[in-house]
Amino acid sequence: MPNPPHFENWTCPLPLRDYPTITLAHGGGGRLSAELIEHLFLPAFADTTLSRLTDAAVLPSPSGRLAFTTDSFVVRPLFFPGGSIGELAVNGTVNDLAMSGAEPMYLTAAFVLEEGFAITELAEVVRRMANAARAASVRIVAGDTKVIERSRGDGCYITTSGIGVVSDGVDVGPDHAQPGDVVILSGTIGDHGMAVMSVREGLEFETTIESDTAPLHDLVREILSVTRDIRCLRDPTRGGLAATLNEIANCSGVGIVIEEKAVPMNAAVRAACEMLGFDPLHVANEGKLVAVVPAKWAHAVLARIKAHPLGVQAAVIGRVSDQHPGLVAARTALGGTRVVSLPLGEQLPRIC
Amino acid sequence: MPNPPHFENWTCPLPLRDYPTITLAHGGGGRLSAELIEHLFLPAFADTTLSRLTDAAVLPSPSGRLAFTTDSFVVRPLFFPGGSIGELAVNGTVNDLAMSGAEPMYLTAAFVLEEGFAITELAEVVRRMANAARAASVRIVAGDTKVIERSRGDGCYITTSGIGVVSDGVDVGPDHAQPGDVVILSGTIGDHGMAVMSVREGLEFETTIESDTAPLHDLVREILSVTRDIRCLRDPTRGGLAATLNEIANCSGVGIVIEEKAVPMNAAVRAACEMLGFDPLHVANEGKLVAVVPAKWAHAVLARIKAHPLGVQAAVIGRVSDQHPGLVAARTALGGTRVVSLPLGEQLPRIC
Repeated sequence: MPNPPHFENWTCPLPLRDYPTITLAHGGGGRLSAELIEHLFLPAFADTTLSRLTDAAVLPSPSGRLAFTTDSFVVRPLFFPGGSIGELAVNGTVNDLAMSGAEPMYLTAAFVLEEGFAITELAEVVRRMANAARAASVRIVAGDTKVIERSRGDGCYITTSGIGVVSDGVDVGPDHAQPGDVVILSGTIGDHGMAVMSVREGLEFETTIESDTAPLHDLVREILSVTRDIRCLRDPTRGGLAATLNEIANCSGVGIVIEEKAVPMNAAVRAACEMLGFDPLHVANEGKLVAVVPAKWAHAVLARIKAHPLGVQAAVIGRVSDQHPGLVAARTALGGTRVVSLPLGEQLPRIC
Repeated sequence: MPNPPHFENWTCPLPLRDYPTITLAHGGGGRLSAELIEHLFLPAFADTTLSRLTDAAVLPSPSGRLAFTTDSFVVRPLFFPGGSIGELAVNGTVNDLAMSGAEPMYLTAAFVLEEGFAITELAEVVRRMANAARAASVRIVAGDTKVIERSRGDGCYITTSGIGVVSDGVDVGPDHAQPGDVVILSGTIGDHGMAVMSVREGLEFETTIESDTAPLHDLVREILSVTRDIRCLRDPTRGGLAATLNEIANCSGVGIVIEEKAVPMNAAVRAACEMLGFDPLHVANEGKLVAVVPAKWAHAVLARIKAHPLGVQAAVIGRVSDQHPGLVAARTALGGTRVVSLPLGEQLPRIC
């Protein structure tokens, strides 16, 4: 944990001081549950709806279509260079909403805590979630906490769900790619996966590899301000760029061809992948997106992405084709072509 | 597990036959993840939005206010008399929405699965979720699956989130109770907690105690059809009736007095509680609700609840008072009065 939190910094630490670690009673719906909520979650998330402690948050209904999504986060370790499970849990769900073309609005957060988990560590995770939520302008409006016995968990699992609103005329989906479309990637790949991997395995590189975890809704807003005629938006998380492109190829019934050397990658990530034998196309990202756009919009969309702080290294990496539907091919640096397959298994378990 | 499922009954069993238990690869976002989704989750939940496999479900926005809630389920064992984690995960979130006076509409489901968990067992949990969702007329529109290493979990944890819509004029909340209001309970207490406890501890009683898990939104609809002037609706789950009444007393700044002998209870539950030394007021329920209503509506609301299959044993159990704000008192069968406290800890860990 890079910055160990201290009890002294707490908003209202009193009743929690007596219990430095999570006990089963913190999940029992009794007084200790209430204290955890009152003294840890509510001050951190500081939301008037959450504070009402109703069974469900009651919120004004947005006009337009709703986007609704959920994701569990089980990353190990909980803290890693560039982020923690807290940032992932917020940004991951914000990004799932953004990839549907939605403006993220409300999140819920459900915690499954292991008996014995340090309350200071929980407080730090929650603080980071609150910061990430503020940065992404979303409200955390409802939550839940369960506690499981020692060795039936791994400190802290978090499930976030989110609601967003999709503007009229926006209709993106993995089944919308068409031959001739251009594939744009918003930046370097592999950073998140190799950041988690290097800290987990105790690897040292010349420069620290940092997770790219970031909320992408603002970048999506920029893209949609160029044109609403965007076919697909996806963030290549688990399974990496390879899984994302395969899903699009599959759902749309099209082929995709990418240029390997056009795919941006940090030198340290490239070196780490080579050393460990990972295909960087299979490594997870947490702050990148793939946009499939009609060719006529490609130039303008790319320019807008590159003008955004999260898209400085964006590039056109390939094209959608009517050849080999369902298949992704990569032209290698040596001029050959290889099939980019969906990984069967799990290169990096518990990466998010 | 009462009814072990068989591979033969599966919709499309082929690729899963090769992997009878969950592997880390089922959570890796690769081919095995895709197969689990395609062959297990999608056929069971059979939802056109879910089947689109987008990052978020895009749905028509309901008019009126939204209710939004989340709950994790970690009950042990996964199957027990009268239900399973599957029914709990659906009904629990349906009920959290209903307790806000909302009509439940959409659910998401996120699974944290332990490596080695039997896929047949997962299929049975999912089948029961699908049945419960159909019975409650809610759609499961998005989901997620993560896999954790053996002994970092306990088979299967499920987090469901839900969206509902709150009709105009409905405004219930734990802070709305007023002196003079009447407290109605929809049926017997303690059934769920003692059902789980008896199977967990291998206890045998003359009759099997069954969980009362049930969706309560239809009963809530009936109550709100009598009058929208309902103060509070709560389902007394973790912490039991005692926790629910204490929350209402606390949030509303009122006292509550209940008559112990007016609280309905099954004979087997009463016997089990006496034997094990549990206070039934602290034992969890999964298909009961507490309604706090203005005195002038009490008779009509009680009659309507009793006419509903889930409310046959409903009773007026107490009154809201301006005495001892924040405190719940019970008049005992012997004529004395005792304070009904919020349990500090956890009588029955992992009850939901």
